[in-house]
Amino acid sequence: MPGAFCIVTHPEAASPYNRLAARFRRIATLNEAAGILGWDAAAMMPPGAAAARGDQLAVLAGVAHAELVAPALAEDLAAAEASAATLDPWQAENLRLMRHGWRRATALPGDLVEAQARTNAACETVWREARAGADFALVRPHLQAVFRLVRESAAALGEALGLSPYDALMDANQRGIGAADVAPIFARTAAFLKTALPAVEERQARRPAPRRPRGDFAEATQEALCRRLAARLGLEPAHSRLDRSAHPFCGGSPSDVRITTRYDPGNPLGAVFSLLHETGHALYERGLPDAYARQPVGEAAGMAAHESQSLIIEMQACRSDAFLGWLGGELRESFGAGPAGAEVWQAANLGALLRHVARSFIRVDADEMTYPAHVILRFRLEQALVSGDLAVADLPGAWNEGMRDLLGITPPDDAQGCLQDIHWYDGLVGYFPFYSLGAMAAAQLMAAARREMPALDQDLARGEFAALLGWLRGHVHALGNRHGFNDLLRQATGKPLDPADFEAHLTARYLD
Amino acid sequence: MPGAFCIVTHPEAASPYNRLAARFRRIATLNEAAGILGWDAAAMMPPGAAAARGDQLAVLAGVAHAELVAPALAEDLAAAEASAATLDPWQAENLRLMRHGWRRATALPGDLVEAQARTNAACETVWREARAGADFALVRPHLQAVFRLVRESAAALGEALGLSPYDALMDANQRGIGAADVAPIFARTAAFLKTALPAVEERQARRPAPRRPRGDFAEATQEALCRRLAARLGLEPAHSRLDRSAHPFCGGSPSDVRITTRYDPGNPLGAVFSLLHETGHALYERGLPDAYARQPVGEAAGMAAHESQSLIIEMQACRSDAFLGWLGGELRESFGAGPAGAEVWQAANLGALLRHVARSFIRVDADEMTYPAHVILRFRLEQALVSGDLAVADLPGAWNEGMRDLLGITPPDDAQGCLQDIHWYDGLVGYFPFYSLGAMAAAQLMAAARREMPALDQDLARGEFAALLGWLRGHVHALGNRHGFNDLLRQATGKPLDPADFEAHLTARYLD
Repeated sequence: MPGAFCIVTHPEAASPYNRLAARFRRIATLNEAAGILGWDAAAMMPPGAAAARGDQLAVLAGVAHAELVAPALAEDLAAAEASAATLDPWQAENLRLMRHGWRRATALPGDLVEAQARTNAACETVWREARAGADFALVRPHLQAVFRLVRESAAALGEALGLSPYDALMDANQRGIGAADVAPIFARTAAFLKTALPAVEERQARRPAPRRPRGDFAEATQEALCRRLAARLGLEPAHSRLDRSAHPFCGGSPSDVRITTRYDPGNPLGAVFSLLHETGHALYERGLPDAYARQPVGEAAGMAAHESQSLIIEMQACRSDAFLGWLGGELRESFGAGPAGAEVWQAANLGALLRHVARSFIRVDADEMTYPAHVILRFRLEQALVSGDLAVADLPGAWNEGMRDLLGITPPDDAQGCLQDIHWYDGLVGYFPFYSLGAMAAAQLMAAARREMPALDQDLARGEFAALLGWLRGHVHALGNRHGFNDLLRQATGKPLDPADFEAHLTARYLD
Repeated sequence: MPGAFCIVTHPEAASPYNRLAARFRRIATLNEAAGILGWDAAAMMPPGAAAARGDQLAVLAGVAHAELVAPALAEDLAAAEASAATLDPWQAENLRLMRHGWRRATALPGDLVEAQARTNAACETVWREARAGADFALVRPHLQAVFRLVRESAAALGEALGLSPYDALMDANQRGIGAADVAPIFARTAAFLKTALPAVEERQARRPAPRRPRGDFAEATQEALCRRLAARLGLEPAHSRLDRSAHPFCGGSPSDVRITTRYDPGNPLGAVFSLLHETGHALYERGLPDAYARQPVGEAAGMAAHESQSLIIEMQACRSDAFLGWLGGELRESFGAGPAGAEVWQAANLGALLRHVARSFIRVDADEMTYPAHVILRFRLEQALVSGDLAVADLPGAWNEGMRDLLGITPPDDAQGCLQDIHWYDGLVGYFPFYSLGAMAAAQLMAAARREMPALDQDLARGEFAALLGWLRGHVHALGNRHGFNDLLRQATGKPLDPADFEAHLTARYLD
């Protein structure tokens, strides 16, 4: 029904800013459609539809890109900037973000974008085979081609944005923090781990091994528990779905958030903690400011900010002793004692299970203490790969050396080393740091919330999240993308990102 | 990832026809995306996302429309027509359909399209209230406004397409057949029913009432049976889904067909026969010609053709004595005998349950014998409403008079009369005839298939559909939209639509 959706009925009558807002609303609406189709591809789509879905998403991305780089939008942008004095602070920030998005979209020649799409897709395909066979040499020429183009596009983006090439890549995922901010933080964290990790291992070794859940945990019962937990945390069923996928994720859009988890019939804790993590993401999306829906300033504040919201729920709140006591009761009610005995659901046992620290090769399986080491390694290596200081051919050796330096272990092969993550092989560089910056921000936000709400842990011990959610809504969610990462933290906690809170959290949880 | 989907990398090098094909492929791909979002809205979407989804679908429709009416497309169209001599017959028909679609898209001024969208939406909203309260007067002014605009757009479309206004409306849903073809067919059917219906009722009254299923039929068991049946009919799980929705439907796209049904825990037959109907639609989509995917000539041949494919499965094949014998065994295996006894699943009892004829007020609940009467009434009335021979204010009286004439019954109120269907109140006119034309075509196709495959009923008695599906693939599905409705039937059965086969079917099933 063309014409039914008339954001701007009389475009000539609207101000340049309002015309721009309408243009970005359309683009965001196209991206929402793509978001649902992406969710569907992971959670619902029959396998034979993959090629058609790829075409659909590519056409939608192409239309959104074409609307963003259209000359009429550039004209409105210039006109709105010329009359920016009339804008309120939200609108002014929105306008800056529009210009920023436009600069990113117009910085790269179409040939380069196409070459990257082709090269990344080819590399990713070969990477699957290379990882399966632990054969880095197989994918090496493809990865060299990927990084040649990454360097080229990083240079062009950096030029357009006034950033260093690597910072320009980081900026695609999170604004307001660059490599120069991150390097000293990660250096400090690496040093902290050098002493803290052996101490934690030593304490852990002295404790008896925790009991593991045993039995057959019906998926329907696990799912019902997951639904209860999501609702308990404040996620409204009228605006969300919970489904299954191979890899848990949070997708959709703010009015239609879609989370997934996966169920292991031998252990419900995996599904529950994936659910809690994705619910953290989902609550953030639900809490974004309605008044700026479908505007750049109304989006989430970036990937590190998003990860801070999943991790403050999963790691900070839900792996706390207080919450585990309450959760144990829920687990016992759902699954009974089972062959492992009711003790398996006791808070102390759950804590020992869910907070086990171990040096390991695979990032996605790492605990919250060793996880930063995996990220620091990748941060160092990808900067060197972008600058050219490290040749792709030398990556396996540099990887293994870094693992020895940071965690004191050597991967037995490249499948457990530099081939484990898809990111680089798909051309995604400047992304890894934000996993750990999110974890650090979560600790910093939780420390601030605890200071302001001394009863927070009593709430968690009753499975009550209203106060925590209210605090996050006010200090993070409702601010949308109004502030860069460090400014957001400054507003919420009184200081920019400070790893001291993360260290204090790890010390309190693992060493006190 | 803009640029990843490059249908035409060097547009200047392609022929005008190939450029056009690429443009229509893009438009079809956008429509596929909308198809999945529409399915999602009915089968998956949380209720709070309805407004956002409406925006997404409207933007997608607007983009597809804009690409269709773009000046560059019109230039390619003219250039391709100038060199049409080089095209093969499929391409030539494709080009004619492209021009036809372009004429439809450009025939209506934007103001009129917007006015219709607004007016129809407002009318539909009030209609819900009017139907609930059986209060035609409430919605009358809205329906008057709807028909004023329907008349205006039908006139403009007819002008652009060289058709009468009503035929121009019909043509939106099914090409190749107009009111002048339909009127004598429906007149003959009405006359047939006048004598056949009392005779059927008389025979039916002499038989004992069938046993009804009783018990609690677990939805999971019903769903498992539905999945087995769909696969048995030839629907591949790799390219399809089965879900639930309030109203069963078939959506998605040819490589990703999505059907729904609904489960009544007190009776599995409703879910099963909805599933069989939608599977008929789905098999048609799956059988469309790959070589013309995403081209007008590769689409299904229209609404009557589509309905013929659902009804040849549901009504012709699956309500036959032969198939009901096999289905009874499946039902017994799924649900056991139950409190109503195993006799409930016997073919004769299933036949009596599933082929019960009764004059009734509501079209969607009607049996296959009285259904045409409901359609004939609407066909007559909507022609008169479009021509202006019937005023909207006189609709309730004309409706009730028509019901007395055709079925000999008088609706107790307008909710069971002219308020029952959403179509007109949403501006959809020229659609109703195709339900019955599809039923007649199904009978005609089945008669032809039985002539060519004398063992067809033995196949159905073993739950074997390969031969029937193969015949439909060859005579209907693989032809896509290569032919108009009557030409399609001529190719498949040797004659244009002929109600004699439908009458013979009803006579054989209900009177022999």
